[in-house]
Parts: sequence; C-alpha cells; structure tokens
Amino acid sequence: MAPSLYPDYPPELTTEREKYLLANLKDWSIAHGLAVRPAPSFVTQDQDPSGVLATTAPITLFPSLFPRACFEEGLAIQKAYNELYSAIARDEEWLKGIVEELVNIDDFVAKLWEIHVAVKKEGYVQELSLGLFRSDYMVHVDPSISGAPAGLKQVEFNTIASSFGGLSSQVSVLHNYLLNINAYPSSASAIIKADALPQSKSASSLAAGLASAHKAYGTSRTSYPRCVLFVVQDPERNVFDQRLLEYSLLSENGVRSFRLPFHRTLLDTKLDPDRTLIYVPPHSQTTPYEATTVYFRAGYSPDDHPRSEDWAARLQLERSRAIKCPSILTQLAGCKKIQQVLATPQSPHLKRFLPDDATASRVLRTFAPIYPLDKSNAGEEARNLATNPESANKYVLKPQREGGGNNIYRKAIPKFLKSLPESHWPAYILMEMIEPPALRNAILRNGEVQKGGVIGELGVYGVCLWKNGTGQKAGEVLENWEAGYLLRTKGDQSEEGGVAAGFGAVDSCCLVDV
Amino acid sequence: MAPSLYPDYPPELTTEREKYLLANLKDWSIAHGLAVRPAPSFVTQDQDPSGVLATTAPITLFPSLFPRACFEEGLAIQKAYNELYSAIARDEEWLKGIVEELVNIDDFVAKLWEIHVAVKKEGYVQELSLGLFRSDYMVHVDPSISGAPAGLKQVEFNTIASSFGGLSSQVSVLHNYLLNINAYPSSASAIIKADALPQSKSASSLAAGLASAHKAYGTSRTSYPRCVLFVVQDPERNVFDQRLLEYSLLSENGVRSFRLPFHRTLLDTKLDPDRTLIYVPPHSQTTPYEATTVYFRAGYSPDDHPRSEDWAARLQLERSRAIKCPSILTQLAGCKKIQQVLATPQSPHLKRFLPDDATASRVLRTFAPIYPLDKSNAGEEARNLATNPESANKYVLKPQREGGGNNIYRKAIPKFLKSLPESHWPAYILMEMIEPPALRNAILRNGEVQKGGVIGELGVYGVCLWKNGTGQKAGEVLENWEAGYLLRTKGDQSEEGGVAAGFGAVDSCCLVDV
Repeated sequence: MAPSLYPDYPPELTTEREKYLLANLKDWSIAHGLAVRPAPSFVTQDQDPSGVLATTAPITLFPSLFPRACFEEGLAIQKAYNELYSAIARDEEWLKGIVEELVNIDDFVAKLWEIHVAVKKEGYVQELSLGLFRSDYMVHVDPSISGAPAGLKQVEFNTIASSFGGLSSQVSVLHNYLLNINAYPSSASAIIKADALPQSKSASSLAAGLASAHKAYGTSRTSYPRCVLFVVQDPERNVFDQRLLEYSLLSENGVRSFRLPFHRTLLDTKLDPDRTLIYVPPHSQTTPYEATTVYFRAGYSPDDHPRSEDWAARLQLERSRAIKCPSILTQLAGCKKIQQVLATPQSPHLKRFLPDDATASRVLRTFAPIYPLDKSNAGEEARNLATNPESANKYVLKPQREGGGNNIYRKAIPKFLKSLPESHWPAYILMEMIEPPALRNAILRNGEVQKGGVIGELGVYGVCLWKNGTGQKAGEVLENWEAGYLLRTKGDQSEEGGVAAGFGAVDSCCLVDV
Repeated sequence: MAPSLYPDYPPELTTEREKYLLANLKDWSIAHGLAVRPAPSFVTQDQDPSGVLATTAPITLFPSLFPRACFEEGLAIQKAYNELYSAIARDEEWLKGIVEELVNIDDFVAKLWEIHVAVKKEGYVQELSLGLFRSDYMVHVDPSISGAPAGLKQVEFNTIASSFGGLSSQVSVLHNYLLNINAYPSSASAIIKADALPQSKSASSLAAGLASAHKAYGTSRTSYPRCVLFVVQDPERNVFDQRLLEYSLLSENGVRSFRLPFHRTLLDTKLDPDRTLIYVPPHSQTTPYEATTVYFRAGYSPDDHPRSEDWAARLQLERSRAIKCPSILTQLAGCKKIQQVLATPQSPHLKRFLPDDATASRVLRTFAPIYPLDKSNAGEEARNLATNPESANKYVLKPQREGGGNNIYRKAIPKFLKSLPESHWPAYILMEMIEPPALRNAILRNGEVQKGGVIGELGVYGVCLWKNGTGQKAGEVLENWEAGYLLRTKGDQSEEGGVAAGFGAVDSCCLVDV
C-alpha cells in the first residue's frame, strides 16, 4: 500500500459534498449511539450539571485504507492469540518468574500479584476465567527494502478493559451507510465499495462472550436473580461504547447487567460465607443479585486505586465466586514485559504455550523485535541500541505497566534513559518501531474537521473462556472465537495544522489488495 | 380512571432509584436516537457552530396511565378516519364550499387554494395521493356525571407534517426497557407491566407508507435513480424524529431519500416538460434523481412562506408528477373548519363521506361538539355561548388555520372575541372542552426533572394511499392502515413549580382497565 498506489485517497470533497457527508454523519452517529459525553473543555459541568448532552464520538469521515491480506491474517490468528494468552494466564509458575522481575519497580504489578497470592493461599473458588481480549497491530512496511510487502506487526495485547468494541461496530455500519447514500464521490467508487468494507460485529460478539461466562457460571448459590457486573470508572465519557455491549447483552442474550463504579465496590457488593458475590443495587437494596461475571472496564491503572479501599475492593472481587474478566493472572498476562519475553529474538517461550509449530510461527510473524532492558544478553544488546541516538532512532521505549504513561520515541530515548536511575530501566522495554505506510484521512472531533496524515492501528477482539486450577478438565478452553475488529486512527504529526496527534478516532477498514 | 383508582401513580422514587432511572434513561435515549438538537437557550450557536451536540428529547420518566378501552378504540377507528379524510380530499366540490368561507379571513388557506386551482386548470398529472395522518385525542370524563365512563374525544386531525412518529416508537421501547431493568419500583408492578405497555410501531409503519407510494409511482419517466424527498425546515431541532423514518425507509424498504430544505426547493428541483420532478442534489449535481414522493415536514404554516418564491416552490411541487404527502387538497382537508362542520351537532356531512352507518356513528362518538362562529343557526348559538363568561367556561376557541397561533381557553374567550372585529370571528371555531382525568408524571427536559399534574394527548397514526381524478379506479383506496401511536404529555398548570405548561413531552401508554 505504497501511497503512490492510492495517491488520491481519500478523495477531495467539494464544499457541498462535505456539507452533505457531515450532516448525515452527525445525525446518524447520534441516532445510533456512536457518541461520547462532551469533554469539559467543550461543555462545562456548570452548563450541563445533570449530563444530558452528548456529541458525535471522534470518528473518521472515510474508512481508512488497509491491506486486505493483513486484515484477514489479523482476524485469522486471533484464536491462536486467545489460546496463547489463556495458556499464559493458566501458567502461574511461569508468570511468577516474570512478575518477580517487576515487583520491585512496578508497585501496581506488585499489588496485583499480592492479591493473587492471598487468594491462592485461601484457594480460588472459581475455576473459570473469561478474556475479552484485543490484539492491536500496525501495518509495517520495511523502509529499507524497496517494494517490501506489507506485514502486520503487533503493538500490544490487551487483556483488560479492551475498549471501543461498541463504537467500532457502529462506525463500520456508518461508513457503509455513507457509501449507500452516495456521500462519497463516485471517483472513489473503485476503492470504497461494499465488499471492501468489513462490518465489525464486536459489540454483539463481546456481549455474547459475557453471556457465555454468565451461562457457564453454573448452579446459583442463592435464590437471587443473576447478573453481570460492569466495573466502571465514574464519570465515564466513553459510556456509550460500554452501553452498546450492555444493550446487546440484554436484548440478544437476555442477561441483566449493572454498572458498578469501581470506587463503590465495597459499598454495593459483599461476599457470602461461601464467597458468592452478592450485588446490592443502591437503588433497590431489598433485591440483591448473585453476580456471575465481573467485567472490568476500570482497574487497569494505578489511577483507579487512589485509596487503600480500592485494593480491598479488588481483593473482594478476586476472592469471589464470580467469573472475572479478567482475573488478576489474566490481567498480568497482558504486561508489556510478557509481550517482550515472547518477542525477544530467539525466545523459547512462545513454543511453551503454542506447541503447534505452524500456529506458533504464524503468531511469531506478527511480533516486532522487543528487547528487555535488563542484565540478560538481549538486555545488554538493547542498552547499546537505546543509548546511542543513531540506533535508538529505529525504536520506541514503552513502560511495562498497563496505563503506565507515555511511550518515548526514537531519538528522545537516550536522553530519557539518562534521566532515570539504571535500576529503573527494566520497567521499560525497547521495541523496534513499526513503520506504517503513509495514509491520509479526515477526523471529526468536537465539531471540527481535521485533515492530514494519519496512522491506523487495527485491533482484533477475541473471546476466550477457560478452566484454571487442577480439577477435572483443568486447562480446557470452553469458548474461543474472534470477535470483530477496531480500526483506531490518529494523526501522524507529519504536518502542521493537520490531525492533532495523540487523540485517536474510531475508524473502519477499506480493504485494498496490494 | 378517576385519580382515586390510582392515587399513587406514578410511584415515588427514592433519591437512589431516581438516579438509577435517570442514568439509564439518559444513556439509552442518546444511544437510540431519542434525541433533539439542544435549544439555543441551552447551547448557543457560538459554542457549537457546527451543531454536533444533542440531548435527550423531552420525555416522561414513566409511561402515563391510559384507559385500555379508549386506547384500543383509538387504534381501531384509525382506518375509518383514513377513509373519511381521503374521501374529503377527493371531494373537491365540497371542499370548495368550505374553503370559500375561509379565503377572505385566512390568507394561508387562500394561497393554498389558489395553487390548487392553478394546477387543476392545467390538469394534475399525478392521480395518487398519500396521507401520513395523525388523529389526536384526549380522554374525556364528563365532570357533571359522577362515575361517568372514560371516552375518547378528538382534539384535531393532522393531514400534514404529523410529527413524533420516530421518537414515539423509541419512547415506548425505552419505557419497556426501564421496566425490564427494574428501574420502576416493585410497588408499581401491578400497574407497569409488559402487557400494559403497547409498543408503537410508528417509525417503521410510516416509513412503509412512504415506501408504498414510492412503489406505486409506477414507471420512471427518466433514466435517473428514484428517491423520496423529505421537505423540511432548516434548521430543524427535531431532526432525529425525521431521521428515524429515513433510516427505516432505507434499511427496511431499500428506498433512498433526501432532505430538501423547503427554501431550497427552486434551487434543487426542477420540472421536466412532462412535469416529472427532478431532484438535483447540491452535493452531486451530475447525478439527478427522479422524485416519486414529496413528504412535507414543512409548509404547514405561513412562517414557512416568508418569500414569494416559497409559494412558487409549493406550486412547483404541486404541479409535479411526484406523489404528494399531502396534496394541497389533503392539507386543506385538515382545516379545523372541516373538523368543525363534521362535528357540529346535527351535521349531515359525516354520512356523505362514511356511508356505512356503524362506521360513521363510531367515528361520531369521538367528536366533541364544535360550533362555527358564523351566521348559521349553530353559529348563532355559538356566539351566545362564547361571549358569556359563564358558558364560555366549558369551551376552547381555536384558530382554523394550521399552525395559526394559540388556542384561547374558557373565561378568556369573551374578552378575546371583543378585541376582534366580528368579521374575523369565523376564522375561529368553538369547541367544547375535553375534560381529561387528573394525572401525574415526571418529565425530563434540558436536564431538569419536573413533576406534577399532566394531561396526555393520544395521537394515532394512519397511512392512506388513494387515487384521485376521474380516470379508471378513481376514488380507489390502495393502502389503508393504522400506523402506531404517540402519547404527548404536558403540564396541566395545576400547580406552581410543576410541569411547565405548553411544552409537551413524548410519552407512551401504560394501559389500565377502568
């Protein structure tokens, strides 16, 4: 997908056509929940104290070009990724070795591990774990090889709070709608056409994942009705993304759910003596529910745990009989450190979890080389690469923690490392930069259209339900499916006045053969 | 439905329960297009120049109580009403007699009639007419009879731009959703229950009406693709109500439509020599469309016609081959004057249009007595009633024009009439006040909840497609169905600080047996 192949994409819009496209996009998005609550910089709380205003979510005007073969490969290997990460989450011994390298430098990981250890000592009463995963990729075209084919390289693997599954479904329908009402000029019709626009079924498919856990929970321990708990941040501007899953869970699966602000966990839930998780709705305290499944859309970052009660809350949920999505071990399996040890050149680990050679090598092809910054041989090599501005230019430095701050790019790496005591370096990994092809698009955000160079990140959702423990059928994977996709597009900072960097927009794929 | 039967409706909500109900209502409404663009008093144009913000439409927190028998009767007689009004619209001679009484006092009616006469002289080229009607009723309980049964009395019959068919469908789903997630306290469960909440299919059913006209249009006269035109006001805050019909038209019927701001009619449409209506989209002038059907959501009020071009625009559309929804004769059939001549005690007119006695008397039972203010015997009686403050107290004075200003109520009537020259009195009709039962509800508007006494107005939608003219099968009714319902609820001004009068909220019915 060299830009020279599609130099005119997206097509230029006349003023009248852009007006038509935007009018339809703005109305359709609100009518279909492709929305967010406005940022305080757009609407102050004083103006709308009860929070009734909403606005179109940041979205692209066009579906972004994406190589068809890469897209299909990303979807095809998701089941292998689900298998890989569920196997890691089940391998406590192996995980322990990794985590032990982190506990001294990452309080958050240390705290999570502590909770796991405490629950393990007491004994887990729930053998099932649910993962609603998202594997994120960029298209990589090696700039040093002329005419190099486009490949898919993994950016990260999310095991907790994988977001945008709700909005993503809607944006692929939106772009298809805009095509159907001829909002795109006919000059682009050879590119933007129905069979090039894959529809993401993520909202429905992720909800089906929650429903499968709810059903697999087994016999009730109480006479209460059953529910799924969405553990959420409060307030949450991205609430419609989550709501779309809730609505699908109820309308397509008949499963009730409640939103539990994480900070209210100890107020609104309690454990029965047998550790059944009881949810007592604050609006109806006389009608408690038995919670089958705890779906975390919060708790992935230290920011969610300002008080010691927040750790007690997490402990209560982990101790409970409810199926966690994710369990702490599953959450820890998503550490960047783990991505790193899998992707370190000559790593033996991938084979441990994916014994089938063909599957393992297919997954391996999506890894960009990643190095630790520790005392190992690979670590030594990494230190040399990272401290030299010349070689650092091909790399990105990433914190290992979930939600643990910003990445450091290329030439900024040596200076950044110099500012840190060397004992803290192992909290970061060094990853070869993925070199995505140059693309252009237009993004609507807060009513403004920004046009310019963009890069896209493909997220592929996966649902996996498996059995932990040592009992009968331990290790069995009960459910495993690919669950739709997300395209997240953001400014590439390639030009002044273009698309603001850092703020992503929800997008969909326009598949092209390259 | 004496209030004593349901004194505790709606149920009191604890603070926590109201919070739960509102949080769910606010999110669900945005996610499902139960929304409006905010009023300028809430969000200024400066703040949101491109119009991306939206807010929950004014809606009730609870479905309002409504007598089941009245509801069922309203739906059951809609087909008879469709038959009645399509017959009136086909009877030009009879209509002419009515209109001639109005032309000197109502410029708007005069102008519409002028256009009809001009087109008739030239000859209509389209024999089909479409009506998307709405018959509005209130429940009437005669206050002078103790224990009087509840009956349905017609407030008005809308033949143009009948609104809220989109939002109405959604609000009935919303109230059902709130029931399903136990947002209503269990103390109300004997009243608010699934089989008491009729779902309105209005969005889908009205769209099917437009599709039936589109299909009945017959052979294309051009090689252009075909479309339906929504003639709209611009800007339009109630845009989502209309969009829901557009989306249903496209997704359920495969029919393309465009929004044509009424003031752009002469810019964006033209007539072929054979008067085929060609729509030239401003965003894509090289791809014109053949318009099969013109659906007016504007043009019902003098305010839509500030310029002489606006009348030329209406003439162009009326002259065209497209099916009008409504034609000018159909629009005129909706004059309050016509409602009055049908409902004047001892009127012979109803039988003219509904020859079947049983049908006619069933319709007649929904009329509240209405008097003209003219020189007839009934008019003489009306003058006596209206100028005496004592007897005027049982009446409302309504302008005959569509969108022609506010009603005058009860004791205010004599003084108002005194302020008018007597020659202008025939522009009004005098209608016996309908005495609806006392109800209570809570309305969310602009983020504020108002609670108090309310009155509800039931609107029943109808779709009717018929053949005019003198040709083969003239007078044939091709399609005739009841198309869902609307409950519109507003403050009854019964108390200070209660629900603000004048501003309606979209509501749904909670049927009760009384």
